[in-house]
Amino acid sequence: MAIYVVCDLENLEPWVRALKNVDSSVDIETIESVDDNSAVEFVMAWTYPHGMFEEYPDLKTISSMGAGVDHLLSDPRLPAGVNVVRIVDPMLSQDMYEYTLAVIMNRLRMLTHFHKNQQKGIWKRKRCLRMSEVSVGVMGTGVIGNFIATRLHNAGLTVSGWARSAGDRVPYKKYHGARQLDQFLAGTDILVNILPLTPATENILNKENLGKLPPGSWLINIGRGGHLAEEDLIDLLDSGHLDGANLDVFRKEPLPGGHPFWNHPKIYITPHIASLPYPASVAKQIIENYHRTLNNRPLLNQVDRTRGY
Amino acid sequence: MAIYVVCDLENLEPWVRALKNVDSSVDIETIESVDDNSAVEFVMAWTYPHGMFEEYPDLKTISSMGAGVDHLLSDPRLPAGVNVVRIVDPMLSQDMYEYTLAVIMNRLRMLTHFHKNQQKGIWKRKRCLRMSEVSVGVMGTGVIGNFIATRLHNAGLTVSGWARSAGDRVPYKKYHGARQLDQFLAGTDILVNILPLTPATENILNKENLGKLPPGSWLINIGRGGHLAEEDLIDLLDSGHLDGANLDVFRKEPLPGGHPFWNHPKIYITPHIASLPYPASVAKQIIENYHRTLNNRPLLNQVDRTRGY
Repeated sequence: MAIYVVCDLENLEPWVRALKNVDSSVDIETIESVDDNSAVEFVMAWTYPHGMFEEYPDLKTISSMGAGVDHLLSDPRLPAGVNVVRIVDPMLSQDMYEYTLAVIMNRLRMLTHFHKNQQKGIWKRKRCLRMSEVSVGVMGTGVIGNFIATRLHNAGLTVSGWARSAGDRVPYKKYHGARQLDQFLAGTDILVNILPLTPATENILNKENLGKLPPGSWLINIGRGGHLAEEDLIDLLDSGHLDGANLDVFRKEPLPGGHPFWNHPKIYITPHIASLPYPASVAKQIIENYHRTLNNRPLLNQVDRTRGY
Repeated sequence: MAIYVVCDLENLEPWVRALKNVDSSVDIETIESVDDNSAVEFVMAWTYPHGMFEEYPDLKTISSMGAGVDHLLSDPRLPAGVNVVRIVDPMLSQDMYEYTLAVIMNRLRMLTHFHKNQQKGIWKRKRCLRMSEVSVGVMGTGVIGNFIATRLHNAGLTVSGWARSAGDRVPYKKYHGARQLDQFLAGTDILVNILPLTPATENILNKENLGKLPPGSWLINIGRGGHLAEEDLIDLLDSGHLDGANLDVFRKEPLPGGHPFWNHPKIYITPHIASLPYPASVAKQIIENYHRTLNNRPLLNQVDRTRGY
């Protein structure tokens, strides 16, 4: 018995060390090393070729190595009976909050603008935006989105949130369901997308929806590249309806050279760093689900495969 | 009777409008327009030539147009009996907080670094700093400094404060007095200076004190240019002891062309925009002190001229 690893990381060592720190008795193997495919019952996975999991007849559980599971559920040949679990990591939520706060405050205080002026030797005041003048809308208030919205609220920003369903009581204004989406967007100056990527949310950041934001709005995408209709974003920026965008996730990563996002004057890209995986922080959940799988017990953070998150 | 204005603003109109909105019966005049100098009892002032207030024998009160009064108290010929009052504006404190939060988060998330990489077409991840890895030290926890420290604490940062005297209970760790300054500095990774400028605090940001910060620290100066020993800062940045500085205030403003700060790779300058005056927000205090002056009543926010704040 072992945890089999499926990913393209060059250096697995930090993951192995973190897992061994939690339970030194567990064997960790790469899936390429297995002789008998029926030995594979538990896999932790990031990227992999579609269809590969059909090769393992006794596979019971696949643990994503991150919060997202779209890389798994997008595989049409993912065997029906396999359980998919994801990582729920408070450090990951905190990271996403800190990234979001940084890009919002940079926008409000126009630090990039002032830095460009400094490079040109220009001393020129400009009226900045104040927290009280903008409303931040967090699209997707699951575990991570709710954390971000609550913390941004604590930092002094006016925050609202939107999710598919009503959910629990929260300290910010909450919209839900398709019927309240327009109202949510109309009141949002800075839209933060952190939805899960599912067939229902793919391309949700399109001309129709982004066009419902007030003129001069700003987009922050920390969800997935697949949420964003790329040409629609460029059209809305060029027409002046949107004032700018911070993008941390892309359909293809690294963002290919020559992609129009690289040089667009209103697009600020970061190389998928809103959160980086912290093996030490997530190892315990993976080990726990490994033992639960072996003992046929209910799993932590199991994904509803039909819902997609 | 009138409020006489002494400042170099090109456009006084927003100030006049704001003051008239509070009390339309009050006359607002520029000091140049006065025929009889003994008519001047109340002045609101920003920059002015030293010694000029000796010309007004019945001057009772000078209201600064901002939070700082160093521009008034540094005048050796300021008549002894004149009361000096300053502005205590919650919007100003909020602005200073928002600026400080913006530059701290920019530092932690290295947004300027990633923007430079974008301009070169480089996709390269870099481990950022997390809030939990740094300690912010607010030097000067008067009205504004305490506001900043409390809000940064609410935003999730680890904050300590230092002031001359112990003061009230606060939600962050507080140091006070000369004896605890070293301890405060030794535990501070990001130093935010918001002290008042007095003979006792001039050049407090010098090699001796900044050298007590841990290696790799960062300076944010939103106090006054006179707090900073400029050559000491450059030495500490060049030696690598300090990792960078955000400066919003300077000994001479606008910062003169050719000043070494403009092109230093570790210095980020903004043109004194951490807070801009909001006449509407401060007019009420000025009008109130004007009436109190006329009626010989105790003034709001009166400065202790010997202490300097």
